[in-house]
Parts: sequence; C-alpha cells; structure tokens
Amino acid sequence: MRSVLAVDIGATKLAAAVVEETGRILERDEVPTQPMATVAEEAPLGDGEPRGPGWIARPGTDGSPSSDGPPSEELWDRLAALVANVQRAAGTRPAACGVGTAGPLDGPHDTVSPLNIPAWRDFPLRRRLEVLTGLPVAVELDAKALALGEGWLGEARGVADYVAMVVSSGVGGGVVLGGRLLHGAAGNAGHIGHVQVVPGGRRCACGWRGCLEAEASGLAIQALTGAAPRAASPAVIERTGTLVGRAAGSVANLLDLGLFVVAGSVALGFGAPFFAAAQAALDEAGRIGTARGARIVPAGLGGEGPLLGAAAVALGRG
Amino acid sequence: MRSVLAVDIGATKLAAAVVEETGRILERDEVPTQPMATVAEEAPLGDGEPRGPGWIARPGTDGSPSSDGPPSEELWDRLAALVANVQRAAGTRPAACGVGTAGPLDGPHDTVSPLNIPAWRDFPLRRRLEVLTGLPVAVELDAKALALGEGWLGEARGVADYVAMVVSSGVGGGVVLGGRLLHGAAGNAGHIGHVQVVPGGRRCACGWRGCLEAEASGLAIQALTGAAPRAASPAVIERTGTLVGRAAGSVANLLDLGLFVVAGSVALGFGAPFFAAAQAALDEAGRIGTARGARIVPAGLGGEGPLLGAAAVALGRG
Repeated sequence: MRSVLAVDIGATKLAAAVVEETGRILERDEVPTQPMATVAEEAPLGDGEPRGPGWIARPGTDGSPSSDGPPSEELWDRLAALVANVQRAAGTRPAACGVGTAGPLDGPHDTVSPLNIPAWRDFPLRRRLEVLTGLPVAVELDAKALALGEGWLGEARGVADYVAMVVSSGVGGGVVLGGRLLHGAAGNAGHIGHVQVVPGGRRCACGWRGCLEAEASGLAIQALTGAAPRAASPAVIERTGTLVGRAAGSVANLLDLGLFVVAGSVALGFGAPFFAAAQAALDEAGRIGTARGARIVPAGLGGEGPLLGAAAVALGRG
Repeated sequence: MRSVLAVDIGATKLAAAVVEETGRILERDEVPTQPMATVAEEAPLGDGEPRGPGWIARPGTDGSPSSDGPPSEELWDRLAALVANVQRAAGTRPAACGVGTAGPLDGPHDTVSPLNIPAWRDFPLRRRLEVLTGLPVAVELDAKALALGEGWLGEARGVADYVAMVVSSGVGGGVVLGGRLLHGAAGNAGHIGHVQVVPGGRRCACGWRGCLEAEASGLAIQALTGAAPRAASPAVIERTGTLVGRAAGSVANLLDLGLFVVAGSVALGFGAPFFAAAQAALDEAGRIGTARGARIVPAGLGGEGPLLGAAAVALGRG
C-alpha cells in the first residue's frame, strides 16, 4: 500500500502524518508552533489562534530547551523532529510529501512566509523538506489543500465544482472547477476572504474595506464585539453566517458552482445557526439564477482536514 | 491558409464571417435579428438593445417577405442565408464553425434559449448549423467567446489570467485562468454580472438584489435614471464605473488575476470617465492585497470582438 507524508503548518501547531493512499492515517503527531512560554503568555482567541506579536523565543523561561539558533532554525528543528518521529512510528517509507501551509507562498511554492509565523520569512520549506526526507515535496496553501482533501474524502467527494472555505481567525478558501484546483497568477486563487460583502465596511488587512475576512473572521468578530467568537451572541452568529452566505452567492454566480464546504473553528464552533443563516443568504442569491440550489455545509473531514488535505497534495490531486 | 466560419447571435443582429486562423476577416455580413417592422416600432435603448416584447412576426406590414413558418424558423432562415452568403463571398471552405450567443445554453451547448430572442427556446442551433454547413460546430456564450477573442488577438494577448467583461444592456463575462477558459457546472462560469455590489440593492432579473447587472447595466441605468445610458450624467457614469471596479476587485482577489478587459456599448460609450472610476475602485481593492496592480481597460477588438471570439471558439481556443 502506497503511503505519503503529510505536513500541516499552522499558526498554533505543526502536524505531520503518514497517510495511506486510501486516506487511512497510519501515524500522526503534532507540536506547538510556538515555544510553550510564548503560547502560555498570550491570550488566545476563542479559536486558539495567537494574536500577539507572534513568535518570540524566550529560551529557558519555562524550562523548555533553549535554542542557540535563530527562531527560523528552532522552528525548523521542531518540524524536522516531528517528521522523523511519525515516519519512524509508521514503519513505512512514504512515496512523496505534501504540505499545507498558511500563506503567502512565493510563485513556484519554494518558500513560505506564513503571516502568523513571523519566524519564517521566505523560508525555503520545500527544499529543506526534500533534503530532510529524500522525498519529492509539494507545498500548497492550507485552504487549497483542504479543498483537495474534501474532494478526495470529505463532503465534496465526487463533486467536480465546489469551494472549500475556512472560517477561523482569518477566512480562506480553495476553488475546484471541472475537477481542477484553481491557482491564479501567483497561486492565491480561492481567497474568498477578500470578496467584498460590506461596501465601505471595516478596513481589512489587505487594505480594502468590507472584505469577508474583515467582517466575518474570528479576528473581525473579536474587534467588532470585544469578545472572542466563542462568546458571540446569536445576532453575531447570524450576521456572520449571512455574510459568508452572501460571499458564497456571488462566487456561485460567478463560477457556476453549487457546493460550499466550510471548515474552521469559527464556522464549526458556531454550528447549526451559522449554517442556517449562511444557507438562507445563499438561497436569496439563488432564487432563480445560477446559484439556485447551491448548498453550504460543514466540511466533512473535521480536525483531520488539514493533514488529509496535505496528503492529497502529496498524491498530486491538485 | 486555414479559415473558420464565425457566427454571432445577438439580440439586435445576427453576424457571420469567414476568418483566417491569423484573425484576418475575409468576409463578414450581418442582418437584423428581428424583422424591420418590429425593430422600427420599438424604442431601442441607447445601446441599441430592444426592450419590448421581443420577436413579434408582423409579416407584410413593411413590405418585407412574410413567413409561413413559426418565428423560430423564420429567424433560422435568415441566419442560414447569411451564412451561405459569407461562405460564398469568401470563396473558401472553412474548417470549422464557432458560435457566440446570448445565454443561456443547455449543458452540452446543443440548444440555445437567448433571453432577448424569444423566438428561440431550446433551439437546436448546433445541430442545425452542422447540417447546413457540413462543418463541426462549437457553440459558446458570447461573453466567454469574447474572452477567447481578447486573449487571442486583443488586450489580453499573451496573458494567462484575466477576465473579459461586457457591459451593455446586461453585464456578462468570461474568466481565463492559467490560459484556460472556465466553464463551471453548467457552462455559465464568468458571469460577473451576478456578483453582488450593493447588498440589499435593486432586484435583479436573477432574483437576487444588488447584482452588478442590476445596478450597472444599460437596463439598470435606464430604470434608475429614466433615461438611456447615452444621456447619463457624469455622476451616473462614475457610479457605474465604480460598481464595475468594485466587482472586479472581488474577482481579482478571489481568482488571483490582474487584468479586466471590458467591452459593451455602455462601457465603451461612457469611455474614459467610466474606466477612470473603475480603475480607482479596483485600486482601492488592491492597496496591498492580491489585486494590487490589477488593471481594467477597454477591450481591444471593438466591434469585431464578437465575431473574432466566435472564430476563437471555432479554432478550439477554449
């Protein structure tokens, strides 16, 4: 049975797994992205994403091993140990390695600069993993990897045209049309978080106003309400779902597709009332036009979505 | 030199041409879509699109030949004569036939039901043209055909990722990503006219509210101002450009592309002030994010865009 090595680079944790080509996870493990001292000292959002100054190496303050190298190397060492561990535990040699990571990537996907991981700027992740593992390595944006995973094993199985979304501290997505993942000029296609849903609305990190991410992400909810998403009122949950459904309506019309699978701690934490509001807004968009009958549903892979997405990248499903 | 037969099915005219594979038009001709009596009795919009009850056969009232058949056959006879004429005049046998038509199409593009041509409902255009010409026939939505034409010979030549838009009595578009025309589940991808730009805005023909088409099309301008687009004030022109640029901003962010080429009588009639407002709105969307540097420019092929787009369809450029 062929297997692949799957790696997920997130703001709060690094995860790795060895996954069979059937989707069965043989071994998985994870470590915090940031040293324990930093994590403990920061007030996490309701969805567990750090909001503080990001990576700050504070060797020794909690008894964890200190690092002599720069933060980028300390983080790499943690990842390298994690990867070695899961490969050893699985007792099999994977055929390839796939990575899902927070963006942005550079054009050829050779280096990564995850916004929420300041330790890595133009970090040559693909090459370093190739040298470490001896495997061919493919790197993809996390939301695009998730889209591949949902098409392979999740709620979009057998569907040729769909969008996978992540609504957590940020909002991202991946678009599959005709069974092919869209990439765009620099590989950032699918970023539904920067579809405008409130003209003249909140200033977004991207510089525009009223983007979905500026109105419906965990960070936006925190800023708008003064409280973490887990403390959101029914009205906030409904508004968030409505805005997500509104963006989905525009995208359904633009791309002629009928399925949105939504992951992410904010969406899944809000649950049924969120999805009901999103579906109602999408129904408004699809009264008689292209979006008619379009559905917006929770992603099928839950917490394993990122790793199974990375496995799909390794398997060349993009 | 290989040549193709190009056919453009519009609400106001049917056009046909024989086009060399270099893009040179050997022969072209056109006829009104509707009988003269009907055209003369209707008050056209500023952009020449009929708003009335559409096709109404009024044989004999203006001395034109009467038709014994149903309107669908009379329209077909006009098209068949047009096609025969340009083929005869060109004196060459085309290798294939491409059609650009107002939508919607059915899934396999075998039948057409152009909204503004009520005489044709589920009309088997592809098969009829195959029988008439003996050529392989490919049918595509007009805006998608235009996108192919602009990529082949117009403002998007050599560009792998772009959107072509038509802003006339309606608003349509075609998206090319990675050099490939997007189709979507039922072939309607690219319909930027139903991206929402004014939440809670005007009711759209598609059933939603505040779609770009419901706010910025020729019909919308007529309804909003009580006057044809050609009489629009500078404020109306600026608003229309702003809304088009706003939709373009969302699409640039979603699909990671940087070029919008815009055709259509409303956009081209408004001219420079329209494009300045659209570019300003697009610049707002692209301050630092994915849409940074995106441009919105007049289409390059002018009045020949529809026929050259149909020729691109014939050449299999989609």
